[in-house]
Amino acid sequence: YTPPRAKPRAHLTVLKQTPTPHPQNQFPALQWEHELGLAFTKDQMNYTNKFLVIPESGEYFIYSQITFRGTTSECGDISQRRRPNKPDSIIVVITKVADSYPEPAQLLTGTKSVCEISSNWFQPLYLGAMFSLEKGDKLMVNVSDISLVDYTKEDKTFFGAFLV
Amino acid sequence: YTPPRAKPRAHLTVLKQTPTPHPQNQFPALQWEHELGLAFTKDQMNYTNKFLVIPESGEYFIYSQITFRGTTSECGDISQRRRPNKPDSIIVVITKVADSYPEPAQLLTGTKSVCEISSNWFQPLYLGAMFSLEKGDKLMVNVSDISLVDYTKEDKTFFGAFLV
Amino acid sequence: YTPPRAKPRAHLTVLKQTPTPHPQNQFPALQWEHELGLAFTKDQMNYTNKFLVIPESGEYFIYSQITFRGTTSECGDISQRRRPNKPDSIIVVITKVADSYPEPAQLLTGTKSVCEISSNWFQPLYLGAMFSLEKGDKLMVNVSDISLVDYTKEDKTFFGAFLV
Ligand SMILES: [Mg+2]
Repeated sequence: YTPPRAKPRAHLTVLKQTPTPHPQNQFPALQWEHELGLAFTKDQMNYTNKFLVIPESGEYFIYSQITFRGTTSECGDISQRRRPNKPDSIIVVITKVADSYPEPAQLLTGTKSVCEISSNWFQPLYLGAMFSLEKGDKLMVNVSDISLVDYTKEDKTFFGAFLV
Repeated sequence: YTPPRAKPRAHLTVLKQTPTPHPQNQFPALQWEHELGLAFTKDQMNYTNKFLVIPESGEYFIYSQITFRGTTSECGDISQRRRPNKPDSIIVVITKVADSYPEPAQLLTGTKSVCEISSNWFQPLYLGAMFSLEKGDKLMVNVSDISLVDYTKEDKTFFGAFLV
Repeated sequence: YTPPRAKPRAHLTVLKQTPTPHPQNQFPALQWEHELGLAFTKDQMNYTNKFLVIPESGEYFIYSQITFRGTTSECGDISQRRRPNKPDSIIVVITKVADSYPEPAQLLTGTKSVCEISSNWFQPLYLGAMFSLEKGDKLMVNVSDISLVDYTKEDKTFFGAFLV
């Protein structure tokens, strides 16, 4: 008998977000629950300060769903005079930060225009794909507007990865 | 040579649904094809009575896409006088039922407002993530309204899981 | 020590598309980047002429995201007099071509009506699921309208697969 190879893996779930400063040239990163409820980290995968830290080089499947909700948004001609806090798009980016490279790399982006005529809208953006990662790479999830993220339930907004 | 570890896994595809009673406090569960066409179950993963039954404890990646279709829905102010059968949202929940715990647990939820001005709309909701499951756990897919589910093609509406 | 089993796997990213002829009875297939940037193929998975070629029989998880963008579309009654190039739906199909069978098989389909009132809309369609494939099977991604695909960034439109 050979024990199965260790497979670093984690599933993180949404938390109520604490406002923190972020670089002006990137979207704010989400904070995550990593051990309560449905959340876990295993086999050396670590969560620290908004980042999943990759413990072993290899190919990882990375996924995230962000559920957004907001109030009326207006698009097209009407948007010329749109008010603040009426977004016309929602964006999620899964970003990699590597020790060996100064610029963060965008691995996955989901972007959607939200021009529904609706007083209260909500919808998920889902992302998932496989990437070659190096030991020490760090992953975060950035969103265009944290105030639109539904943080009320762990099954609506989440982030995870596992070695393939 | 060591044979690869058994990996319980299954891919289920949509069927025409037979109406069955369901508890009032939860959405109705979908029935699935488990052996014809693209559908299969392998390595002790079993399908029975709307449930996938987990044969071995571990982390599983679970996914589902439900394609919904319907007719005009009206939102915002107009929705105050909306007629029956005009939904203003679509919801999918992947639910776990455990022998050890009386309450079903919601693992994954996808929820979207559908306020398009359209005589005939259709759209998918996709979900996928990894969970720690115990032997004997049972998984089902619940939807807000079975009559809106597109059951016409096996590649549009499906449900699956595999041991990571 | 037993080395881990080889796992054919690939992640492909979008390219600017070169128009090529395609059969009238199917949607056009996308071309992909397979070695630059985030893209790679490993352990005998090969990319050739729009196809991923499966090197070993088994269950594969297959995924794709296509980001679409376009200009105003009109639906419902108004669509009776709609102009050309105003699509009322977007469709992605992951298709399998097998040596043993003459007809391509649709493994995964994502389809969405796009009736937003919006001068410029954009949105992703995501698909992912597991399939039993045979050595030599070939996979492609077909879309209803190549001119609506966002090919500008590798993290917005992609296609991949790995042996489970
Ligand atoms: Mg819409």
